[in-house]
Amino acid sequence: MKGYSLGEIAAHLHGELQGDPGLTIMGVQTSLEAGPEDITVVFDAKAFARIGESKAAAIIAPMKAGELNRNVIRVANPRKAFVELLSLFYPKAERPAAIHPQAIVAATANIGEGVSIGGGAFIAEGVTLGAGVEIYPNVYLGEGCAIGEGSEIFPNVTVYPGTRIGKRVRIHSGTVIGSDGFGIMRDASAATVKIPQVGAVEIDDDVEIGANCCIDRATLGATRIKAGTKIDNLVQIGHNVEIGNHCCIVAQVGISGSVKIGKYCDLAGQAGINDHVNIGDGVRVGAQTGVIRDLESGAWIGYPAMPRVEALRVYSLLTRLPELHRHIQTLEKRCDDLEEQLRGFVDGPSLDHGSSKNDDES
Amino acid sequence: MKGYSLGEIAAHLHGELQGDPGLTIMGVQTSLEAGPEDITVVFDAKAFARIGESKAAAIIAPMKAGELNRNVIRVANPRKAFVELLSLFYPKAERPAAIHPQAIVAATANIGEGVSIGGGAFIAEGVTLGAGVEIYPNVYLGEGCAIGEGSEIFPNVTVYPGTRIGKRVRIHSGTVIGSDGFGIMRDASAATVKIPQVGAVEIDDDVEIGANCCIDRATLGATRIKAGTKIDNLVQIGHNVEIGNHCCIVAQVGISGSVKIGKYCDLAGQAGINDHVNIGDGVRVGAQTGVIRDLESGAWIGYPAMPRVEALRVYSLLTRLPELHRHIQTLEKRCDDLEEQLRGFVDGPSLDHGSSKNDDES
Amino acid sequence: MKGYSLGEIAAHLHGELQGDPGLTIMGVQTSLEAGPEDITVVFDAKAFARIGESKAAAIIAPMKAGELNRNVIRVANPRKAFVELLSLFYPKAERPAAIHPQAIVAATANIGEGVSIGGGAFIAEGVTLGAGVEIYPNVYLGEGCAIGEGSEIFPNVTVYPGTRIGKRVRIHSGTVIGSDGFGIMRDASAATVKIPQVGAVEIDDDVEIGANCCIDRATLGATRIKAGTKIDNLVQIGHNVEIGNHCCIVAQVGISGSVKIGKYCDLAGQAGINDHVNIGDGVRVGAQTGVIRDLESGAWIGYPAMPRVEALRVYSLLTRLPELHRHIQTLEKRCDDLEEQLRGFVDGPSLDHGSSKNDDES
Repeated sequence: MKGYSLGEIAAHLHGELQGDPGLTIMGVQTSLEAGPEDITVVFDAKAFARIGESKAAAIIAPMKAGELNRNVIRVANPRKAFVELLSLFYPKAERPAAIHPQAIVAATANIGEGVSIGGGAFIAEGVTLGAGVEIYPNVYLGEGCAIGEGSEIFPNVTVYPGTRIGKRVRIHSGTVIGSDGFGIMRDASAATVKIPQVGAVEIDDDVEIGANCCIDRATLGATRIKAGTKIDNLVQIGHNVEIGNHCCIVAQVGISGSVKIGKYCDLAGQAGINDHVNIGDGVRVGAQTGVIRDLESGAWIGYPAMPRVEALRVYSLLTRLPELHRHIQTLEKRCDDLEEQLRGFVDGPSLDHGSSKNDDES
Repeated sequence: MKGYSLGEIAAHLHGELQGDPGLTIMGVQTSLEAGPEDITVVFDAKAFARIGESKAAAIIAPMKAGELNRNVIRVANPRKAFVELLSLFYPKAERPAAIHPQAIVAATANIGEGVSIGGGAFIAEGVTLGAGVEIYPNVYLGEGCAIGEGSEIFPNVTVYPGTRIGKRVRIHSGTVIGSDGFGIMRDASAATVKIPQVGAVEIDDDVEIGANCCIDRATLGATRIKAGTKIDNLVQIGHNVEIGNHCCIVAQVGISGSVKIGKYCDLAGQAGINDHVNIGDGVRVGAQTGVIRDLESGAWIGYPAMPRVEALRVYSLLTRLPELHRHIQTLEKRCDDLEEQLRGFVDGPSLDHGSSKNDDES
Repeated sequence: MKGYSLGEIAAHLHGELQGDPGLTIMGVQTSLEAGPEDITVVFDAKAFARIGESKAAAIIAPMKAGELNRNVIRVANPRKAFVELLSLFYPKAERPAAIHPQAIVAATANIGEGVSIGGGAFIAEGVTLGAGVEIYPNVYLGEGCAIGEGSEIFPNVTVYPGTRIGKRVRIHSGTVIGSDGFGIMRDASAATVKIPQVGAVEIDDDVEIGANCCIDRATLGATRIKAGTKIDNLVQIGHNVEIGNHCCIVAQVGISGSVKIGKYCDLAGQAGINDHVNIGDGVRVGAQTGVIRDLESGAWIGYPAMPRVEALRVYSLLTRLPELHRHIQTLEKRCDDLEEQLRGFVDGPSLDHGSSKNDDES
């Protein structure tokens, strides 16, 4: 790995250096794992307070962090600086622009400049690959797929025929794009009948899709993922779904058929969205949440999905249900006593318990 | 794409044509996306009412739909007509019956007539492929697997040794059939000990399995999927599971070991079934439902699974727990007041609050 | 398959044989599926009571099981005996120690003795494979990966560069190790910005990982799975997660970034763990449970995770919410009546209903 001087790093990050500009830094690490040749980043005052334990040679910190008698680079936005720092120290490995002799590339494929295709990859008839596209080993690209400039398709990805993928898209291993949507009807005898799935999948620029995801082709028309959206691993996206720009979809989320999701949404892990639901811009859905109706805005959690603040109270009370139950039982006893006293006071003794307390079958 | 005249389409669908039988239709589309050369299908009266917005050249509609001054084909069952129409316009692409020179096929494999095997596919010793089977690139079929006539195995599928697959089965990319069941015990020191998984997987005719599913081999005996069952993506089916005919299993469902499921069941997305549970014929399980005991019949949702009608009331009340809690607090105050009044009225002032209201720790 | 005499089997299992030591047994089966040449195992008294229905030639049973007029081998631990029996009858198939001519192996790869590499596997520069490692067809091993002695990597597995895998590790088909963690931030305009993921994955000895799992590389440092841990299918393990020794992680579990899990933990199917949560040694988490805070010990179920015993009461009461609601309504009616009576008794008729019962909006 190539090292950089603290002065170079400070200049690269547009930060204010306090310390030795000539000191050479060899890597980036977490504060606990950093050694005496590493730089580390603290994102907030709390982490800054514990930085004494770190052996790091230098620290990147927020402008407002307190004084510290060490090498410090102060920056306006430590998270942004962290991204720039990682890109500086760990640049993307260059891959040779070459087609491996054991790749299988159809004669009618249209291969751009600087494309790399790994051994065992299968490029079907009529595929178009833009400049600089990297296809790793054992990828399958079906007939007529088009992939834009600079995209990377990692090993063992499968892209079914007719899929359109934009520029700078990254698709991680094991992901399947464009297999059939789950369109099944039952005939008069309840036997299953498959509805042919003849639509497509369109993935816009700068989308990243994690490993072992499934994005189904549309029945008719297209399943669409808009530019800038990032998808984690093992996510299911059904037929005819549309996801807007710059969403974050966390691992194991399931999005049923024909769901529409706006821009800038966050869906946390294992959340599920019922078919045909519409979700507005900027909606946030919590982990394991079950969305069964349209959501216009705001943050939602629970099953069924509730506004987050409400849900926190609901689930707090859920855990207290045994206590609430005891309260109800106590209230019933108190009402029994009150009724008994009142009857005794008014009528003298009676054998007639006319209250509705026998409703309690608990 | 090949076009058909409206007359040909009406005849093919056994429908009643109102309009120009000579008009050429080039494709099928949704009502909103249809252009002036497309036909579209409306499935119900509601959609029929909005058809005015569609640019489609012709419309397929239910027999009972109202009058419309356009080209209409009326059919008894629009969903069935939709399937037939898609099959007419988008017939399955013919694949050459050929073994790609870069496929790896063991000498003892038994390859039927008209089989297609893609480049990079690996067919191990003793595999049997029925007539017309299509094996896509980079598929792995382990020793002794047998696949029936007309089945399609899409790219990057893995089938472990000894698996038996019926006729006209479709298995989508990334799916793994026959890997080890999760049989783990703990020894006296709580260390994990693997239980060898030496059983098999048997998949009957006309089953379709989505992308990135896992169907585990049995510990002993076989994991079985019966004819006509359709499985979506990312579904987990554990060892020794048996699933009856014509079930629909939606994406991300998890079925634990030794579960038995009857015929004609529907399991919605992300539902989970505990090990050794038995589910009767025709049972419907809702999305994200947790099934922890046997279900004989009916529709079930929630965690734990409740009869659907009951569950709708339960979850409606769950969202109202804060309100119920306030009611309980109000009742406690009212009982306090009543007790106080009664005491004051009967005894005059007292310091003795003998009620059990102190049970409230909320 | 090779047969063994009952005497050989009894000796192998250190069991006490009652019956014919010369009888030849050809296989192991469940009690219901066993034929007259099979042996079967009963694990408890209940199964022993029903053994009359089995056609098995011989039975392995616990020492304390009752009398039976059949061939029986009594053993101290039937589960342990079952594992030994399966290993005896179904030994691991020998694979030829050979590199398939259609495997692609980089010149700088360091291949140990007796390694087998299947056709279509891709072994990148600088990979190290210990003695006896088996790499199945169409596996991808990225630059610099190291795999210890005796490990097996099944077809279509992808291992990203720099991953370290221990000895006797088994990784099933479709699993992806070392793809990018889901590190996304939003810039000032809420657009997504990817945080480079430059850490690694380290998997210790005797780990088994099921099919179609995802184990992400760390942002910095390493994601770590300790020795003896067993992972089922479709499990998501996020960046910088650490899992201790001898855990069992069941199918479709999702473990978010930076989670730490102790030793000997059990996580049941579809459970989800929020990011940065710490879980102590020996913790058990039930199916579909949502863990949103640290758990030190014990068994937990539900959403949010509750101690198991508490949760069983909570979910029992959840299903009874409609009944509790009726009780509250009845109590309100009873308080109304009591207040009315008391008012009437004390003051005569009044129009002033001063109680807070109007809080009820139900």
